[in-house]
Amino acid sequence: MDLIASLQCADQPGIVHAMTTAVLNCGGNIIENQQFTDHTTNTFVMRTRFETSQGLDAAHKSLNEGLGKFSPALHIRPTAEKPRALVLVTKESHCLRDLMYLLELGELPIEIPLVISNREELKSLVESHGIPFLYLPVTAENKAEQEKVMLAKIAELKIDFVVLARYMQILSSTFCAAMPGKIINIHHSFLPGFKGARPYHQAHDRGVKIIGATAHFVTADLDEGPIIEQDVAHVNHSATPEEMIALGRDIERRVLARAVKLYAEDRIFIVGHRTVVFA
Amino acid sequence: MDLIASLQCADQPGIVHAMTTAVLNCGGNIIENQQFTDHTTNTFVMRTRFETSQGLDAAHKSLNEGLGKFSPALHIRPTAEKPRALVLVTKESHCLRDLMYLLELGELPIEIPLVISNREELKSLVESHGIPFLYLPVTAENKAEQEKVMLAKIAELKIDFVVLARYMQILSSTFCAAMPGKIINIHHSFLPGFKGARPYHQAHDRGVKIIGATAHFVTADLDEGPIIEQDVAHVNHSATPEEMIALGRDIERRVLARAVKLYAEDRIFIVGHRTVVFA
Amino acid sequence: MDLIASLQCADQPGIVHAMTTAVLNCGGNIIENQQFTDHTTNTFVMRTRFETSQGLDAAHKSLNEGLGKFSPALHIRPTAEKPRALVLVTKESHCLRDLMYLLELGELPIEIPLVISNREELKSLVESHGIPFLYLPVTAENKAEQEKVMLAKIAELKIDFVVLARYMQILSSTFCAAMPGKIINIHHSFLPGFKGARPYHQAHDRGVKIIGATAHFVTADLDEGPIIEQDVAHVNHSATPEEMIALGRDIERRVLARAVKLYAEDRIFIVGHRTVVFA
Amino acid sequence: MDLIASLQCADQPGIVHAMTTAVLNCGGNIIENQQFTDHTTNTFVMRTRFETSQGLDAAHKSLNEGLGKFSPALHIRPTAEKPRALVLVTKESHCLRDLMYLLELGELPIEIPLVISNREELKSLVESHGIPFLYLPVTAENKAEQEKVMLAKIAELKIDFVVLARYMQILSSTFCAAMPGKIINIHHSFLPGFKGARPYHQAHDRGVKIIGATAHFVTADLDEGPIIEQDVAHVNHSATPEEMIALGRDIERRVLARAVKLYAEDRIFIVGHRTVVFA
Repeated sequence: MDLIASLQCADQPGIVHAMTTAVLNCGGNIIENQQFTDHTTNTFVMRTRFETSQGLDAAHKSLNEGLGKFSPALHIRPTAEKPRALVLVTKESHCLRDLMYLLELGELPIEIPLVISNREELKSLVESHGIPFLYLPVTAENKAEQEKVMLAKIAELKIDFVVLARYMQILSSTFCAAMPGKIINIHHSFLPGFKGARPYHQAHDRGVKIIGATAHFVTADLDEGPIIEQDVAHVNHSATPEEMIALGRDIERRVLARAVKLYAEDRIFIVGHRTVVFA
Repeated sequence: MDLIASLQCADQPGIVHAMTTAVLNCGGNIIENQQFTDHTTNTFVMRTRFETSQGLDAAHKSLNEGLGKFSPALHIRPTAEKPRALVLVTKESHCLRDLMYLLELGELPIEIPLVISNREELKSLVESHGIPFLYLPVTAENKAEQEKVMLAKIAELKIDFVVLARYMQILSSTFCAAMPGKIINIHHSFLPGFKGARPYHQAHDRGVKIIGATAHFVTADLDEGPIIEQDVAHVNHSATPEEMIALGRDIERRVLARAVKLYAEDRIFIVGHRTVVFA
Repeated sequence: MDLIASLQCADQPGIVHAMTTAVLNCGGNIIENQQFTDHTTNTFVMRTRFETSQGLDAAHKSLNEGLGKFSPALHIRPTAEKPRALVLVTKESHCLRDLMYLLELGELPIEIPLVISNREELKSLVESHGIPFLYLPVTAENKAEQEKVMLAKIAELKIDFVVLARYMQILSSTFCAAMPGKIINIHHSFLPGFKGARPYHQAHDRGVKIIGATAHFVTADLDEGPIIEQDVAHVNHSATPEEMIALGRDIERRVLARAVKLYAEDRIFIVGHRTVVFA
Repeated sequence: MDLIASLQCADQPGIVHAMTTAVLNCGGNIIENQQFTDHTTNTFVMRTRFETSQGLDAAHKSLNEGLGKFSPALHIRPTAEKPRALVLVTKESHCLRDLMYLLELGELPIEIPLVISNREELKSLVESHGIPFLYLPVTAENKAEQEKVMLAKIAELKIDFVVLARYMQILSSTFCAAMPGKIINIHHSFLPGFKGARPYHQAHDRGVKIIGATAHFVTADLDEGPIIEQDVAHVNHSATPEEMIALGRDIERRVLARAVKLYAEDRIFIVGHRTVVFA
């Protein structure tokens, strides 16, 4: 059995030794091992992939016993067990398409039991890929109610994380608090940044030479949560706002897909306001 | 004789035809030709490099006559005539070093008759390259006076443009207004941007995955003038603020050198708040 | 009417002037204009986009008359007239998917009247996008015959160019000669290059840190025709051959889509063994 | 005391545990830890940086005892002890300049006790940085003799590794064998690759859109040894061979500097024909 153990705790001597001892004690052989200490917050994080014939329960027992004194946040799961994602979309399809394409190709180790949208445009696209689609229109009045429906679906379908694949609604802090560190969003990014509406038009007016996208976690109390992944592309003066938007779509779908894959493989740790990503 | 003509005016039919006619009329053969219309501001810009045996005066006459009706900003110069740069530095050498290195290699078609600094650290480095160095310390009290010294040097040495190669003083709006579109600065850039002190530490705390640099024109009335060139590099969680600063230096020197080269070859046009760059 | 004129001829003085005069003479206003002289072969190429209310025939007449003395290869077409592509595939879908996705998004100004494959795997994918699919299995015995079927389809459907979107058959020199400069292929590229089977495994064994893809024209007499577009991605030691293949797919689909878009907008000129691309 | 331990051996269960136990046994606290198993060759490599107040000898004793049964190649050194590089150059200065610049900046943890060249052009540049310069002209007749001088200098100056910073002589297999895995070279790279003289001109004729550089180890029995680091830049049709060469220089100096830094920090392991690089 191939397992991934993720561990996060205050840094102190002996953790790596305790982890490797615990893995050995449940008959495990380490395949991958990555660790990092964030000195700002004195936080230690570790991701260990190992094989053992003794199974998940034995691994849980051995690691809990061996690492207990460090009071870690410890998570163990079979590598073969795919995290289940709820994907939220509005009407733009580019990010969703890439997720479904990579899923079909077997390159994205997740399951998508449901796509929810506040609009109906993408219904047939989603269903043509064999994924259920739920239309959940949102107004100022029904927002709280609709988020309850979402949370109910999350519970019912045993959803592990939420992907905002160009979902153009702001989630309430209640919803965010219910899924801490489990909501991934994608948005455009520029050098320098722009506030307000029509950012690509602002970027165009300002003559930026680079446009980009950022995948990040959504948090209730932050304007923008911890960054997971970023990428950029070069543009020049001849790009119209529309061409910049098209290029932006290409970057967004790539960056979001990478972030989802990293999440699905338990490679992301949130430490303070930033992420440690074992790519 | 190899000449570069730069033209900027309101867009209207017939400009390209008029330019090519004027070039033909002074015996010219076009080697390079680039043009662009900025539809937001209805501005037409054109850069034409051509050879003629009739010389600079004949070219001036022919182009002024042929293009006069468009009331263009028209600039013609021999390609072999190198623009003269005043370089301002403080104590960081990385950008200056790359400029001097490329100069010695013959890859940067400029002359640097003088380097001015508000500190003394780089004096021997500059002089070891055979370039005069002027120490001009700046305080709140003497700033206006020192800028006058600079402007006098600019006049005396027939300086064409100013390069701020990590010059850590803010130039007055008077100084900026005296050299409109002729002062190039370099600074760090991030996704997202950060205000205030110690930007690399802020970027580190925020866990950015990309850092960059922007070369731009300095303007009196803008927080940050038209962008000339930008580039980025990827970082991950393991980079300390110091390593990010080191990487930032590498990007800064590269981006500034490229911007100076583009300027020196008359490839940059300022149109509204942005630049058209014929790379 | 918005027109694109593409011109290629031996370089000599006066061509730009003649073109702009000819455009003026048919009431045209130049929107975009790009030109380049390849000094190795003394070849001049020019792409001019202009608007005229006098229509295509008037433009043809004016440009043919005005430019005739240069014996150019001259091509004029309405911008709105989309080139028609025959796409050939085998069983890998990634390149085809991106073409169809961009087509649906309105970002790729082509039409795809037919997809032909030597295998049946992609039939339902193609047809689900409303594009006819022709299964044309190829053996050593029937190859010449099947290529005749293809050429018949090309004639019947007024195909302008052929896109090999991971078509795993080698086209005969007869076929290539029938579509000179009109067949675009995509393949993987490495630093350094590798010959023979299983290139990603070879690249893995050699520990390359960069993998890439090249879109190029197919020619009968060259091992590999003129390069249109290339891109790369960084990998490290931890990438398995399978992960490198997956990353390679991402680069391939991006590079091929860009090459097809450049071709569809008449931005590519073949000059000797290389291309001039007005991006 | 801050130490770096590098370990390479056949993969088998328990190595990580043994290493962490051995570190604990000499009072060590792990700061950085990276490991990788190359499944093709069944090779395990590990780099562990740790602090201990017990000193280098205690660390050697503990790690040798604890890891002995794995028959590893084990190397321990104080982080503060800088590897000593012999830099070989010919007449091009770009790579050497960047190494000296980073050295002066304190960003490259190496010492350069000597630069040797088969030409005299760079003598004053090297000496102006306070580094001894040895002129060692090479002919077919004296090559073996001159390499003996080099090897004597390597012994005398306790040189740890050799950097070929655009050294245009081929080292004999005798010389290479005397410094296995300790000679770093830089050369240009293209997609596709080119054999023979004037590669940039070949790349230009072929119209490549990407040029690059590769830093690699030099080995006696391989055409080109294990790749350490690679990077690329985009070019278009307008780049002359000379401009491509200039751009190539920029990539070369960057890639070589990175490779030397990785080497100086014990981050590179040679496994078969490839490298594992803990960046």
